[in-house]
Amino acid sequence: MSLKLYYDLMSQPSRAVYILLKKSNINFEPKYVDLRKGVHYTDEYSNNINRFKKVPVIDHNGFILTESVAIIRYLGRENLLPEALFPRADKVLNTRLDEFLEWQHLGLRAPLAMYFRVVMFSPDSEKIPSYQKRMETALDEFSTLWLGRGNQYILGDTVTVADLLAACEVEQPRMTGYDCTSNYPVIREWMDRVRTYFNPHYAEASAIVEKIAAKRVPMKKPTAKL
Amino acid sequence: MSLKLYYDLMSQPSRAVYILLKKSNINFEPKYVDLRKGVHYTDEYSNNINRFKKVPVIDHNGFILTESVAIIRYLGRENLLPEALFPRADKVLNTRLDEFLEWQHLGLRAPLAMYFRVVMFSPDSEKIPSYQKRMETALDEFSTLWLGRGNQYILGDTVTVADLLAACEVEQPRMTGYDCTSNYPVIREWMDRVRTYFNPHYAEASAIVEKIAAKRVPMKKPTAKL
Repeated sequence: MSLKLYYDLMSQPSRAVYILLKKSNINFEPKYVDLRKGVHYTDEYSNNINRFKKVPVIDHNGFILTESVAIIRYLGRENLLPEALFPRADKVLNTRLDEFLEWQHLGLRAPLAMYFRVVMFSPDSEKIPSYQKRMETALDEFSTLWLGRGNQYILGDTVTVADLLAACEVEQPRMTGYDCTSNYPVIREWMDRVRTYFNPHYAEASAIVEKIAAKRVPMKKPTAKL
Repeated sequence: MSLKLYYDLMSQPSRAVYILLKKSNINFEPKYVDLRKGVHYTDEYSNNINRFKKVPVIDHNGFILTESVAIIRYLGRENLLPEALFPRADKVLNTRLDEFLEWQHLGLRAPLAMYFRVVMFSPDSEKIPSYQKRMETALDEFSTLWLGRGNQYILGDTVTVADLLAACEVEQPRMTGYDCTSNYPVIREWMDRVRTYFNPHYAEASAIVEKIAAKRVPMKKPTAKL
């Protein structure tokens, strides 16, 4: 079997797939795509690997696949993931996993990623407070409607890929100086559990986040220059 | 079997699930949730049907499920959908369907729905041109990277749920006076094929779109008052 992963650990779904492969003991050839150098915009990448000019992407024996959630589903169907992490036999759990995986695109990923982008790339933008508000509404929903149901993890008392994907999204705004866990104790405790479960791979993949976060002062006013 | 569908045909994924159920000859009890009256915000709805206060939702023999794509996957696994519309046996096609279903959340739905909302609810907003730009970037990508590959439909020469879901999203901005198909001949021809395939159900479900679109003058300047 030949599996290549095109990724940049700056990208939250790249981290999720990278950690998942490591945790699942799947051998793969890492193919680093330097987003900060715009490698994903080159003709070579967009013509041959991903016409959408994004990461992550896998190449499994020549079959090239984009979209992190589709990649995870594919690895699950290929029986490469542990049943516990990607439950398929339990129909109800499998369906609840689907429900979360579809919810998180607009429910969590979009508002957090948009905040991250505007602060990183337009730190003086007047739009920052409105993006922060949308992010915090999403964190409220995630904290109360998914995590705040008395379970250890998103779908119950067992960790799944849902937790990994969500944790990598929640990690992302830290690079801007905003720690999503500060005001949400439920999220903080859950994050600690997820990090612990996926370590040492989680810490390894998140080293870039730590490095960039450490350079920044925690942001009190969202319009403050970083 | 008892299947209830909570929906409002103003909602694009509600239309997709509604049309899919009709086309697949699945009997269901329609439960209208009047979004314009805020029925989805009532305690009764949010406590008992959908804590996310959205449509569509299904209740299948007491099992309540949210998120249109998760609903479609569930119906597929329950063997309620025709194999042609929701291909599962062909592994490559099944994976490509996954890839599109995950892509469309942020690739198509978010930019079109955000444009729709800002024009409908804040028609004087200065943000409209930037939302229009994002929508048109998405339509460009959809037109060239998915449809513009020489096939009749998104995944090949056979219609699938991917087409239905996308068509319902592309339909939505028409209510604001913006016809997504005007400047994209590839999208227009594909839309005609999708509508024809899913008629009379498509036309029935889209009557509300037609009604609201007919009241509006085609929007030339995005900042023009509607």
